[in-house]
Amino acid sequence: MEASAAVWARPYLSAWRSCTRIQGRACQVRRYATASSFLPEKRDLGRSSGEAKRSMGTWQQQLRFTARSMNAGSSEGAVLARPSSPGGRNKQKESVDGKLSALRQLFDKARVKIDAYIIPSQDPHQSEFIAECFMRRVFISGFTGSAGTAVVTEDKAALWTDGRYFLQAENQLGPDWILMRAGTAGVPTISEWLTDVLSSGSNVGIDPFLFSSDAAEELKQTLSRKDHKLVYIYDGNLVDEIWKDERPKSPTAPVRVHDMKYAGSDVSSKLSSLRSNLIEAGANAIVISMLDEVAWLLNLRGNDVPHSPVAYAYLIVELDLATLFIDNLKITPGVMAHLTSSNVVVKPYETLLSQITRLAENGAKLLLDTSSISVAIVNAFNSASNDYYERLTKQSKRKSTKDSNMKLQEGNSLDIEMEGPVAIHRSSPVAHAKAIKNEAELDGMRQAHLRDAAALAEFWSWLETKVVHEKVLLTEVEVAEKLLEIRAKQAGFLDTSFDTISGSGANGAIIHYRAEPDTCNIVDDKNLFLLDSGGQYVDGTTDITRTVHFGEPTSRQRECFTRVLQGHIALDQARFPENTPGFVLDVLARSSLWKIGLDYRHGTGHGVGAALNVHEGPQGISYRYENTTGLQGGMIVSNEPGYYEDRSFGIRIENLLVVREVETPNRFGGITYLGFEKLTFVPIQSKLLDLSLVSAAEIEWLNDYHLEVWEKVSPLVDGDAREWLWKNTRPVSKHCTT
Amino acid sequence: MEASAAVWARPYLSAWRSCTRIQGRACQVRRYATASSFLPEKRDLGRSSGEAKRSMGTWQQQLRFTARSMNAGSSEGAVLARPSSPGGRNKQKESVDGKLSALRQLFDKARVKIDAYIIPSQDPHQSEFIAECFMRRVFISGFTGSAGTAVVTEDKAALWTDGRYFLQAENQLGPDWILMRAGTAGVPTISEWLTDVLSSGSNVGIDPFLFSSDAAEELKQTLSRKDHKLVYIYDGNLVDEIWKDERPKSPTAPVRVHDMKYAGSDVSSKLSSLRSNLIEAGANAIVISMLDEVAWLLNLRGNDVPHSPVAYAYLIVELDLATLFIDNLKITPGVMAHLTSSNVVVKPYETLLSQITRLAENGAKLLLDTSSISVAIVNAFNSASNDYYERLTKQSKRKSTKDSNMKLQEGNSLDIEMEGPVAIHRSSPVAHAKAIKNEAELDGMRQAHLRDAAALAEFWSWLETKVVHEKVLLTEVEVAEKLLEIRAKQAGFLDTSFDTISGSGANGAIIHYRAEPDTCNIVDDKNLFLLDSGGQYVDGTTDITRTVHFGEPTSRQRECFTRVLQGHIALDQARFPENTPGFVLDVLARSSLWKIGLDYRHGTGHGVGAALNVHEGPQGISYRYENTTGLQGGMIVSNEPGYYEDRSFGIRIENLLVVREVETPNRFGGITYLGFEKLTFVPIQSKLLDLSLVSAAEIEWLNDYHLEVWEKVSPLVDGDAREWLWKNTRPVSKHCTT
Repeated sequence: MEASAAVWARPYLSAWRSCTRIQGRACQVRRYATASSFLPEKRDLGRSSGEAKRSMGTWQQQLRFTARSMNAGSSEGAVLARPSSPGGRNKQKESVDGKLSALRQLFDKARVKIDAYIIPSQDPHQSEFIAECFMRRVFISGFTGSAGTAVVTEDKAALWTDGRYFLQAENQLGPDWILMRAGTAGVPTISEWLTDVLSSGSNVGIDPFLFSSDAAEELKQTLSRKDHKLVYIYDGNLVDEIWKDERPKSPTAPVRVHDMKYAGSDVSSKLSSLRSNLIEAGANAIVISMLDEVAWLLNLRGNDVPHSPVAYAYLIVELDLATLFIDNLKITPGVMAHLTSSNVVVKPYETLLSQITRLAENGAKLLLDTSSISVAIVNAFNSASNDYYERLTKQSKRKSTKDSNMKLQEGNSLDIEMEGPVAIHRSSPVAHAKAIKNEAELDGMRQAHLRDAAALAEFWSWLETKVVHEKVLLTEVEVAEKLLEIRAKQAGFLDTSFDTISGSGANGAIIHYRAEPDTCNIVDDKNLFLLDSGGQYVDGTTDITRTVHFGEPTSRQRECFTRVLQGHIALDQARFPENTPGFVLDVLARSSLWKIGLDYRHGTGHGVGAALNVHEGPQGISYRYENTTGLQGGMIVSNEPGYYEDRSFGIRIENLLVVREVETPNRFGGITYLGFEKLTFVPIQSKLLDLSLVSAAEIEWLNDYHLEVWEKVSPLVDGDAREWLWKNTRPVSKHCTT
Repeated sequence: MEASAAVWARPYLSAWRSCTRIQGRACQVRRYATASSFLPEKRDLGRSSGEAKRSMGTWQQQLRFTARSMNAGSSEGAVLARPSSPGGRNKQKESVDGKLSALRQLFDKARVKIDAYIIPSQDPHQSEFIAECFMRRVFISGFTGSAGTAVVTEDKAALWTDGRYFLQAENQLGPDWILMRAGTAGVPTISEWLTDVLSSGSNVGIDPFLFSSDAAEELKQTLSRKDHKLVYIYDGNLVDEIWKDERPKSPTAPVRVHDMKYAGSDVSSKLSSLRSNLIEAGANAIVISMLDEVAWLLNLRGNDVPHSPVAYAYLIVELDLATLFIDNLKITPGVMAHLTSSNVVVKPYETLLSQITRLAENGAKLLLDTSSISVAIVNAFNSASNDYYERLTKQSKRKSTKDSNMKLQEGNSLDIEMEGPVAIHRSSPVAHAKAIKNEAELDGMRQAHLRDAAALAEFWSWLETKVVHEKVLLTEVEVAEKLLEIRAKQAGFLDTSFDTISGSGANGAIIHYRAEPDTCNIVDDKNLFLLDSGGQYVDGTTDITRTVHFGEPTSRQRECFTRVLQGHIALDQARFPENTPGFVLDVLARSSLWKIGLDYRHGTGHGVGAALNVHEGPQGISYRYENTTGLQGGMIVSNEPGYYEDRSFGIRIENLLVVREVETPNRFGGITYLGFEKLTFVPIQSKLLDLSLVSAAEIEWLNDYHLEVWEKVSPLVDGDAREWLWKNTRPVSKHCTT
């Protein structure tokens, strides 16, 4: 089916979506596991940061509130969990009560007529990081966690979230809210619950812009089993109506042109190769709603959401025309010139649906990725197509033509000459094209990583001095702030690529940990310190994790660190046939841990955009084998095995790698063999090694890496940082074990 | 759908089947790859041996004929290919022509009325090794290769086979036959070809006992696209009608009871746990047609086909009754007593369908594995079920009940109290139960492997003396015969578990090589010699491959051997979470070869039966990841990475392993971690090692293994064999490389 076809084509992204697409999924629990474990930590936190950055008015208060209960919200439920002040909670409750009744009053409006309303976490583009104006679920429920779905009926209100947020939700939800601990025994799915609390034949309303077509279809079918109807409320989100003026404004920051020297390929070439893809697929148009796909295709960058340099926009590409749907305020004269030169016309963001309708009326063969395109768009096209065919005289004949093609699936082809509109459900060809970086993009990534490495050398040298020599008591938050300050000095720095994970001791074991000023730990010389951070630069995107100890690591910590590093090395050194799916390599990163019965509950690698999103598909390296995307030269993946000991410590060692063709003495089967080129050049703390466990080859790898780090990064640093870099890139050796 | 559910449940077996189930598959080419590469070599050859053993009359001549052209039949097409004598070929052609016309005369018979007839390679039980009386495709076409399907129309005859057999088929097919080189560009699938040569609306006939329900369904659908009808000809196979008296008799050798001390579990316990499986699945009956499943369940062994100790039989298990359908001649009084004591009744083999009908009439909920159960059986049950529901008064109501349940799928459950027959399409629970060996079965396997190892020590010592010291010129066939002679001396020896692969030099590179007396190579001290063989013993089944050089191996041979051994060691040492699918571990066996751009085109491991079939499912270790069966303690797998250099040499190192729970210092996630216990204890030739490539840990593995081999096997051998074993288990060492 289109659905599964799409899901298979981009399971990486669908893994994120599933996290908040809880509604009505039979496989809800598994999905949760998927979503929460695929991306170790960042995606869980990006949202909160989005809130933090824009916090104002009642938000401020809600967010401080989050801050305090954030640790409590972790599944480990460990560290310094502190109940929020009753005052805060009462205030919370009153406001929530008011909101609920206001929302319910809208249920009976003529244009609405619903018995329940579902409020998900999504923006209309299935983005990982979203603008505050789309945080409707947070507004209505008061629950600020990244994953959750609120459902409000005439007399009930319930919120579904996963184990990472149970405590946080308990603290934040008012008395009128039922907390649905998704993934725990006996907890119903949203549709199970709805069919239970609603009388048969009820209307369940959603904002069709916030649900992908696949998600909506699934929900619709599960509801229909109890004769419930899924109602799409097009004209206006109901939460917005009660949010009124307090609702944050949509972002209007101007977009900028992504320079050709970083993009490497101009818009016209990208559009023309996309158009060839369309023709191959029997299509003559495509609508794109993923913000990074729009940015990549048009060589534009924006500033509408935290961490990702993207702007809210849609793009329709036809064989002879490309239309960007975006708020005009974001388009500077320079950008307009850039677009015009590539024959891209600009229309208001709000006019997308009317253009979708126009496409159907003109008999377009529209390629739609139903795993990301909202049901609002898909429905608009389908209903306009139905009108088209009904207008036709030889109705029956046409209808059959239509019926046989409306469901055109992955793999099938189509006579493009056939008259009338057709929806072609395929995974987006843009995602795959974007994943294969060209040399300019790779060079930008290399340069950005060297500057990032210089910043990290300065940072680590500073931190070591503070902790070890000056014995200054620094919190996890202060350390992260200093890192940002140092990174910000680097040329072309724009933003963090996700919220820094700064975890000392037990906090390092919380995979999605986010330090908060008044609850976080001190970074000292008694504990392991895990630091996962990244930067957005004009020329590239970085993502690096290092784990260090400023005092005497225990032998347990040494053994675990060594086994994580052995996994990191095994994956880094892998060579494999072209198009090998990432999951085939995942075991290389785990087997050293498995030997002593250890493992980690997240994937080993994710794709990374070039000066774009820090998480992108379609490729990935994970123990989950749904994603069969083959690795190809030019793709970028992270290599980040880890080990997390609850309430004790966390270890993760992460570099970014480029998939490259390698010269092999043989080419069995006449195919190309691939390997990895490192992008990240920051020392790995040798003192955490248990030399009795490592092989000569592994020591050689580490020494070669550190030599390369010194050669590449030392020219960019001086003073203490240079000295620190020298000390931390010295070769290690072990006595012969043979 | 049931089909895919079943295929997923036992892809290992389906991989074999697909080899001969060519008809109408869109994915024909891939399937071929699957089938030919999954089982390195054995399955391709068993058939020929079946022929050889039973050859007589015209068979004899055909088989000598095969013998000569066998090498020519290899895809490599290398070694000593010798055209068969014109005389032989003419004789061949005449006879074939006569057969074709005789077959076509049957097309118009009242009970037939077909325009084409498909003759596959299968027996009615989808067996790997089949009895001669079922070799109808060989008889009608003269082509004796293991994989192929013949199709005869009123004026055409075509045979589909894969690359391994193109040359052989060219030599063996008469002038009236079209050779369809499956997997090569432009070659139509069987249904493509049929729809091309037949006028629309034609009847295509098959023997419904020779097609699994899944295969027949697939064929039916592809044919129906051109309005062709698939006709099941129940009463008698058309080839048999013209084969007449020359057709070999069905085997009648008596079956024997498989002793409890080897079986470990009695029939009653096995039946009762199967019955619980049935109840869980909402079923109250199951029909089993896989011969090894019948043998395992009833603790019986037979002698109807080469290499596998099974007998032709069906078994129906109901909640209160079990019925074995088998030729009475095979049942000795002792066996009858054994069966009676477990409340198993015996009925004639031919009466199965009438009992299937009875089940439907009694409203049975029948569990059917449509990937192995013939369409003859499935149809018999379905049509009897239709009659049942039509007889019922409240027809409409019943029909709906039926319709909603006839298609009951994997995962769904069912109210067993519901009235009326239901076909429940599930993968056979017996295959999985059989795969998890109990301690008695494992102990039998251990004992059999030690005696097998003693035989191999004697054999290798003998061969080394002949080749190195006495400089005797021995052929690959003579060597294989001597091995059989030595194995046969071991207590409890019954048969080879497959046709020995005895390949010197370039022949070792032919993955499915079978040495033939008048074409095979000499085993000398100039070439690598690959020997893959196994024995069937009363207490266990063995399967071992060793590769040796009696002279000076080249550095190329050393490097390749070392990398194959590194893969073997990496897999042998793996530890992994319970229920890890085998394909996750496959990369461990390949990565050392991948490092220099080498690979091998077959799976790394297959399941092995306990004193049963040398190939069994559902588990496997392969680069193909369709098989998601999780590995569990008690399963047996082979560990057989290899490397094959066309026209030069072949390397494979194979041990059998038992999946065992291992003691790990940690149990992350509270789960069990698994590892492997070796069953095979035969030295690996150290002189083929390139010590500069191996790690200290790998040398330690080899020395530990050889120490264990000496301790376990030396008590069982004396004289030269003992001396050889001593010499070949001495530890190796390398200078420190750190």
